[in-house]
This record gives sequence, structure tokens and C-alpha cells, in this order.
Amino acid sequence: MTTRRNFVKRTGAGLVAAVAASMLPNEKLYGQDSGKETGSKSLFKVSMAGFSFVKFDLEQSLKMMKRMDVHYLCIKDFHLPLNSNEEQIAAFHAKLKEANVTGYGVGPIYMNSEGEVDNAFEYAKKVGVNIIVGVPLHNLLPYIDKKVEKYDMKYAIHLHGPDMPDKYPDADDVWGHVKNLDPRMGMCLDIGHDMRNGKDPVADLKEYQSRVFDIHIKNVTAASKAGSTCEMGRGVIDIPAFVRMLREVKYSGACSLEFEKDMDDPLAGLAESIGYFKGVIDSTK
Amino acid sequence: MTTRRNFVKRTGAGLVAAVAASMLPNEKLYGQDSGKETGSKSLFKVSMAGFSFVKFDLEQSLKMMKRMDVHYLCIKDFHLPLNSNEEQIAAFHAKLKEANVTGYGVGPIYMNSEGEVDNAFEYAKKVGVNIIVGVPLHNLLPYIDKKVEKYDMKYAIHLHGPDMPDKYPDADDVWGHVKNLDPRMGMCLDIGHDMRNGKDPVADLKEYQSRVFDIHIKNVTAASKAGSTCEMGRGVIDIPAFVRMLREVKYSGACSLEFEKDMDDPLAGLAESIGYFKGVIDSTK
Repeated sequence: MTTRRNFVKRTGAGLVAAVAASMLPNEKLYGQDSGKETGSKSLFKVSMAGFSFVKFDLEQSLKMMKRMDVHYLCIKDFHLPLNSNEEQIAAFHAKLKEANVTGYGVGPIYMNSEGEVDNAFEYAKKVGVNIIVGVPLHNLLPYIDKKVEKYDMKYAIHLHGPDMPDKYPDADDVWGHVKNLDPRMGMCLDIGHDMRNGKDPVADLKEYQSRVFDIHIKNVTAASKAGSTCEMGRGVIDIPAFVRMLREVKYSGACSLEFEKDMDDPLAGLAESIGYFKGVIDSTK
Repeated sequence: MTTRRNFVKRTGAGLVAAVAASMLPNEKLYGQDSGKETGSKSLFKVSMAGFSFVKFDLEQSLKMMKRMDVHYLCIKDFHLPLNSNEEQIAAFHAKLKEANVTGYGVGPIYMNSEGEVDNAFEYAKKVGVNIIVGVPLHNLLPYIDKKVEKYDMKYAIHLHGPDMPDKYPDADDVWGHVKNLDPRMGMCLDIGHDMRNGKDPVADLKEYQSRVFDIHIKNVTAASKAGSTCEMGRGVIDIPAFVRMLREVKYSGACSLEFEKDMDDPLAGLAESIGYFKGVIDSTK
């Protein structure tokens, strides 16, 4: 996770004031950076995965986030292209700031060549985050391993379930690929895809906690390839057990809702899911 | 609460088959009639107060309920007028059945004369429910007391908070009016209005459990007249504590969401609230 200090340090001077001023009204409830859990605060953050808004431009997406009172976003390239210049990035952050939203990471970004890896790291640096959610070809992992050291960034490999066997189907698979690499090489634990590949996301969070840098929250209708995204409270994943495990392992990153249902009209499902997750958070303190 | 058996008994023959067939897919999760809490089942029901849909016709309202996976409705007169005939009532129930929704009660109905009381009880009987949520003039209570015996119906007085001091501001006030009357005289505990009148809805549910027949769930921004409705997880009422008390007192009625915010475009707030409530339910088992 990007700490506020790191974020400010990495960001151009023009943005420093904006970011420093962005103590969000509800941040104390569902995400903060103090490093310890106290009272109503949780270590982890309730966030949105940009992909949930694939059919919407940034303004529309931020309106929905405001409606749901969510203040963290993992930035997708359709909202901020990989080739954005500093001015465009500053304008992007200004829009987020206006909506009380912090962009905490970028991705998922697919990487099929060393050039694409180079671009992604430069992009993340310019955007001012220190986490990249990536989907790299296997043979690029040694190259990326050097990059995370050079840039001092976390690289979270997004796991993809049974649909794409060569794209890290579950947490076991990512672990196998990163366990001997730099400790900044880890995973974005997509609990839906992990479950769809027959795994238990609660157990996997516990087992692989040291390499879980980002999480995609959602629920799915079945623990198999046939399962598809559904609202958080309506699927086969035991969300209260998952949130209890987030606390047990002291997870301090983002839990970003990636909702792949009703994508033309997602607000009702997004809001129900965010509400459900916050209800679980408030009940498990 | 209307039990399924009572509901069928009270309903015209044409509706019996429809109702008997309406075992709802998600009923096992958030509301059922078995009389004991087992496994994933709760005694109480997640429901909608018709008033939340005051700007929408029945079709639009049922579409929103389907989207939220909610299957119980307290019927308001703007969806089913008080002077409806049997044919209109049958058509209404058929529409609900098509949406997997059960109308479990009627109201709130304001009653300012004995004639209006007569009409309301006849209406409830024709609709086939055994609970009326009412707002009666104080001097009509002895008359209503006889009616609940004659019709064997529960009468739940809706409490209204500090805005209308003569309209039962809180649970204490309702209790004072009904404690010496027929045990079928009780309250619809509106937790938002109770809180806005400076009371503690959790303690009031415990204290007055024998007379709490219906509940309006919501949250409010402040424990004072200045407080207004907000999404379930964003207000001053401790919803997890309230749900734990629902279980402690073995409440078996409906918890109907009455959401008086964004009433022209309520779906996002409704969905977030229903999601939150279900998240709390699932976490407090």
C-alpha cells in the first residue's frame, strides 16, 4: 500500500498541497494510514477497482463513488492512459481530489514484453503510486523482479481463475511464481477467481499474507468455472470469515470491489456490495 | 406477523394456489416462517416499507425490489388504494407474486375518525394480512382496541419522532398508550424517529419487545430533531447492536427499510442500506 508519506514524496510539487489537504471525512471509518487498528478504524481500505467502471468515464465513475461514500480507487488505463503526460496526470488527480478520492495504485496492466514492463513502471512512478497490479507473461518475471527493486514498488500479480490457465489461475499459482523473488513481488488476491478455481480465499489470505498486496473483493455464484460475479452477500464466499481473516493477518492494503455484473448499469449492485462489506466490517470489530 | 398459514386462510380461493407456490429462492436466507432460527435462517424478515417508493408506481417498485433481492413489502395505499375491490386486490397480489414478493402488512394508514378505522380494518382483511401499521388520533384507541379483538389483527402504531408531538414521538410514548390495551395493540418501531427523539432503539426493542410488531429500519445523521435519514451504515444508530438485539428478543416480524433520502432516485441508497443490513445479519449469526 501507498502510505500518505510515500505518496506525497513521489508526487510532483503541484500535487503535494492537494494531497496533504485530502483528509477525507469518512476515512476514519473505512480506511486510514495510522498503521494500527483502533476503535472504529480498520487497517484496510474499502476501495473500488477501476475495472468496475469499464463502461463509464471518470466523471461518471467518481459520481458513483461519491454516492457510495468510497474514497480509494485502483486506476485503470481507460481512465488514465498509460501514455499520459504530467499535465494530464495532474488534471486526473485534481478531479479525484475534488471527489475526495485517492488513487492508490494502477492496474491491472497486461504486460507481454519488456517494453510494456518499462512503460508500466514509468507510468506508476509518474502517477505517484507504489503498487502496480499486473498480468505479466511468465518469462518476464525475472525482469520485473529487478524493476521492483529499482523503483521500490510492489508488484501485485492479478490472479484470473480457471478461464485463462496461463494467467495465474489462483493464489497457489502466484505464490509458486513469486516465493523465491524479491519480497515486493506478490499478488492481487481476487477472491472470486480464487474461489472459482476451487480454492478457499480465506485460507489463502492466511497462508500467503506476506505476499498479498492488493485484494479484489466480490462474490461468485459457484466455486467452479461456472461461477460468475454476484453481489457481495449473495454468493458462496463467506465474506464475514474473510473480513475476520483480514483483521487476523493485519492486512493494511486496499479491498477493491471488482463487480463484473450488470456492467452497463452497475450502481445498484455496487452499492449493495459496498454496503454489505461495510456491514460486515462494522459487525466484526 | 402474518404467518403463511394465516395469510392463506384469510385470502380468497383464487389466491391460495399462488401464495402456496411462493416459496421464494432467497427466503431461506433473509426471512422465513419456521418459528425457530436455524443455520443461515433468521427469524425476522428483510423487507421494504412501501413509503420508500412514494415517487414510483408498483411495477417500478417491484423492479427495484427484484434488483435488491428483497421479498417482503409493507403495502402503502398509493400502490393499493384503500377502496380497492377484490378484483383489484387479486391483480395486485398477482403482480407481487410474479416478482416473488409477499405483502405482509398494510400502512402506515392515518386514522382520524371511527369511519377511517372501520375502512382500514376491512381493507386489511380484504388484502389478507393480519397487521396494520397505523397512525390514529389518541381518542380512537379504545375503539381500535375492540377492533383488534374482533378482527384478530395486530395494530402497530407508527412512531414519528420529534416533528409531530401528538403523533407518538417515540417508543415510550406508544408503550404508554397501549400497555393497558389488548396485547394485539403495539408499535411499529421506527428506529430512526426513536433515535431522533433522543431514545435508544436497541434498549427500546428490548424493553418493549412484547409490543413490537413491525420495525422500520434506517439510520439517521444525528440523535436529535436535526437528524435526517441516511444510508444504514452511515448514521448514529449502532445497527450491529440492533441486529444482535433482534436475535436476543427473538423478533420474528419484518424489518422494513424506510429510506427518506434521494426519494426521486433512491435505488443506490436503498441497495447500499439493504446490503449493509444483510452484511450485519450474516456477521452476527
